[in-house]
Amino acid sequence: MTADGLEARLREIGEQRYHHRHPFQLMLQNGELDRRQVRAWALNRYYYQAMIPIKDASLMARLEDPEWRREWRTRLVDHDGEAPGEGGIERWLKLTDGLGFERELVQSTRAILPGTRFAVEAYVHFVRDRSLLEAIASSLTELFSPKVIGTRVSGMLEHYDFISEETLAYFRPRLTQAPRDAERALSYVREHARRADQQQAVMAALEFKCDVLWTMLDALHHAYIDGHVPPGAWDGESGLVAGATP
Amino acid sequence: MTADGLEARLREIGEQRYHHRHPFQLMLQNGELDRRQVRAWALNRYYYQAMIPIKDASLMARLEDPEWRREWRTRLVDHDGEAPGEGGIERWLKLTDGLGFERELVQSTRAILPGTRFAVEAYVHFVRDRSLLEAIASSLTELFSPKVIGTRVSGMLEHYDFISEETLAYFRPRLTQAPRDAERALSYVREHARRADQQQAVMAALEFKCDVLWTMLDALHHAYIDGHVPPGAWDGESGLVAGATP
Repeated sequence: MTADGLEARLREIGEQRYHHRHPFQLMLQNGELDRRQVRAWALNRYYYQAMIPIKDASLMARLEDPEWRREWRTRLVDHDGEAPGEGGIERWLKLTDGLGFERELVQSTRAILPGTRFAVEAYVHFVRDRSLLEAIASSLTELFSPKVIGTRVSGMLEHYDFISEETLAYFRPRLTQAPRDAERALSYVREHARRADQQQAVMAALEFKCDVLWTMLDALHHAYIDGHVPPGAWDGESGLVAGATP
Repeated sequence: MTADGLEARLREIGEQRYHHRHPFQLMLQNGELDRRQVRAWALNRYYYQAMIPIKDASLMARLEDPEWRREWRTRLVDHDGEAPGEGGIERWLKLTDGLGFERELVQSTRAILPGTRFAVEAYVHFVRDRSLLEAIASSLTELFSPKVIGTRVSGMLEHYDFISEETLAYFRPRLTQAPRDAERALSYVREHARRADQQQAVMAALEFKCDVLWTMLDALHHAYIDGHVPPGAWDGESGLVAGATP
């Protein structure tokens, strides 16, 4: 495949498997969730946000070119900020604040679904253990995120009176950060995935990452829409389901 | 806590969080699943079976006492057998054979749910990355497995005409193997978890492992009972859901 052919195939994978098609995502943006379900989403997704700089640091640790490390470092700045109270993780906590969670509960991650934890950890391990090319390719879901973020923000603001511009502060910078990051990662992949086996590995990495995001929403859907909250997780009210660590 | 106190607490965790309480497990043993759902269970659970010797080998690699390695090695013999065509993995394939799957599809694991993959990998990583005490403690779910195996075998034989004694050959040896293994692991834990922090870590390890088994059944439940099969996974008939790797 040419670089253009590979890029077209990657965009096709995103079209088919990115979570913009997931029922939970559609319900979220269409205002079909109740406050409890939106809270569950924000609580669980915090763990993903909190682990992103960890996977980016482990990726940077394998970039031998200072130029590339400098570029990749902007991702850490975006998430961790330049000072306390700044950055994407902090902005995500504004969302969980606005939804009435104590920060201690959110930051401990003890109330999240095991399905969330396993999916996010799978991503961290993938980036740490696979080739640098696959690690970079697994970030390519950001090619597709601006569309879902735009729809999500406008849909949530329109439909939920417990959501405000301020609580959604996380998403606005992402509209410019994600495309910039995605373009860099895509140009790396286009340049370095020349052989057929490399191109196969890149496509599999993107599919894997789509699976991570999809599985996180499956876990939320099963627990908080279908009503099967597992032992130990947030019960949807003020505590944890029986069987929790005391 | 005394060793007896710790053991009592571990048995309590099992009572509350082991998957004998999971709705999918109850439906399986009560004959409430259709053939497609039983097939999905066998196909996905194969990945767990196949990875067990890998986690046991990584655990053995950290046992410094030959006596302990020799004892732990019986687990590998149980799963891998002494010769081709023997062992627990092979017996699990008799089940998937009996349910009409091609071995190539099963052994490739390409049709399993991402939720299954992430949960099983979380277990493998846990055993590899945590302390030896935690790794051994995470195997203690076997304290509770004989009960569920007995009920499962008798229930499946009674209710499903597509299941025979022969296809369930995996489970009979487990009725004696699992208690033997569990007793050894329990005696290790009783002896080595003396400090409060060690006892906490042991309880958390058992909870983690209960979460792994529970999450595997949640994924099956969501996909094949509630009808939300994710992109790329087995469609319940003869192929994979759209979005699969070509």
